Amino acid sequence: MPHAFDPGAFAEPFQTLCTDYPEGDIYVSDQFRVEWGPIFYRGRLDGSSRVVVVGQDPAQHETIVRRVLVGEAGRRVQGLLAKLGITKSYTIINTFLYSVYGSVKAATARDARLVAYRNSWLDALLIGKKVEAVITLGTAAETAWNAWKQTSNGSSFDVAFAALTHPTQPESSSNHDKNKLADATKKLLENWNIGLQTLSPGVRHPDLAMPLVPYGDTWGANDRPAIPEADMPAGLPSWMHEQDGWAARLGKDLKSKRRNITVTVPSDVVV
Amino acid sequence: MPHAFDPGAFAEPFQTLCTDYPEGDIYVSDQFRVEWGPIFYRGRLDGSSRVVVVGQDPAQHETIVRRVLVGEAGRRVQGLLAKLGITKSYTIINTFLYSVYGSVKAATARDARLVAYRNSWLDALLIGKKVEAVITLGTAAETAWNAWKQTSNGSSFDVAFAALTHPTQPESSSNHDKNKLADATKKLLENWNIGLQTLSPGVRHPDLAMPLVPYGDTWGANDRPAIPEADMPAGLPSWMHEQDGWAARLGKDLKSKRRNITVTVPSDVVV
Repeated sequence: MPHAFDPGAFAEPFQTLCTDYPEGDIYVSDQFRVEWGPIFYRGRLDGSSRVVVVGQDPAQHETIVRRVLVGEAGRRVQGLLAKLGITKSYTIINTFLYSVYGSVKAATARDARLVAYRNSWLDALLIGKKVEAVITLGTAAETAWNAWKQTSNGSSFDVAFAALTHPTQPESSSNHDKNKLADATKKLLENWNIGLQTLSPGVRHPDLAMPLVPYGDTWGANDRPAIPEADMPAGLPSWMHEQDGWAARLGKDLKSKRRNITVTVPSDVVV
Repeated sequence: MPHAFDPGAFAEPFQTLCTDYPEGDIYVSDQFRVEWGPIFYRGRLDGSSRVVVVGQDPAQHETIVRRVLVGEAGRRVQGLLAKLGITKSYTIINTFLYSVYGSVKAATARDARLVAYRNSWLDALLIGKKVEAVITLGTAAETAWNAWKQTSNGSSFDVAFAALTHPTQPESSSNHDKNKLADATKKLLENWNIGLQTLSPGVRHPDLAMPLVPYGDTWGANDRPAIPEADMPAGLPSWMHEQDGWAARLGKDLKSKRRNITVTVPSDVVV
């Protein structure tokens, strides 16, 4: 069976963006897991994207796959894009190149070098391209977007835009309280439904034309599709894009956890 | 600081070879860790290679990096290539696409589909290209080479060739016995020195012209250089190519170990 894969950042300007990038002097190690390296994007780099998504920062699954938003948050975003009829014509980048450790200081997030590098990605993905909608996920991504909108390229760029709640905000805000989680999920999906109303008319060239079907009060059966195999590097096993929860940071103390990513093949794969 | 990376298998025929490859019906799961996916190559896919190396099978470091021969065996091969003046103009593939689990049955290794796929890689790397020397590492790789030499493409192909002892054969044959390890290392380096005598005159266009300096009785200080950053996918942290021993298969029983790869950042990287 053929397995499509992402050919990667082989063409300019992306090859240069993946060669020369901000490191530990900008992404300082008390706020970022710089030791795992930067993780740049997921999706199309060939100019075919109709939607650009700005997420926040990569976590452990992203660190193994070396693509952004491939875990649970990524599946939810995949479902969001599907509601716009977008199944392949998208590119996702993050606000931060490295995984956030603890929290990010405002001065770090505003660092002109950090912002300028991210703006270079937005320039490359948006200026003179075919993008019809932009989505930000969470407040950091919205701030990132606003920073680009203040540049000369950004100020003259005008497509459908929605600043949405981050896809795993319900989990991070509810502290394992089931009722809080249900409430926060409902609020998130209301927020996304409002965003879809803005975005949907803008996406005039979807991969699949379809009527907009809003979310219900909780995640529906088809709202968290697998990450497409075509977004993965060559040769990755199918469970890495079809399943989640296979990577964890384990350790007996903070430093051990920071140094560790444990990958476990799902039990149904090895029999 | 710019970080060169391998742009990957974006061009044909390599894109197709990394899309459509033998799976579990050929690489059966009682002999191969098919659950971790295939790992295809390391080095140049742009036709610039002067030396092609055929190794055996990928292990845990290769599985995370998704390139072959990046662990200790890879460092030793990097040193071997350096003795030929080859610092970048090489391509390495393996006999087997997947990590060997236990041992490989003769009938599996001879499977016509497995052999034909590997021969397609050799065709792509060798026919009409600039390669001046071929190296096999270990008996499985020598058998693989002989299978290609029996094809019409292979039978008419003639460059310097050496079938060398596998770089970690001393460890696997000595069972933690220091004296046996020293003896086996000495024998390996004698074997490699003989091979270098054959290979060196064939490599007429090295990256760096230099006199051939044979190995001593054990590994010298410069005989195990780091894997070049330019062989890695984009964004991998430097310790993944500069160091070894950061990936392990851990678990309380065979199945747990088979399902696990634990990545640990070297202790000097996270302070």
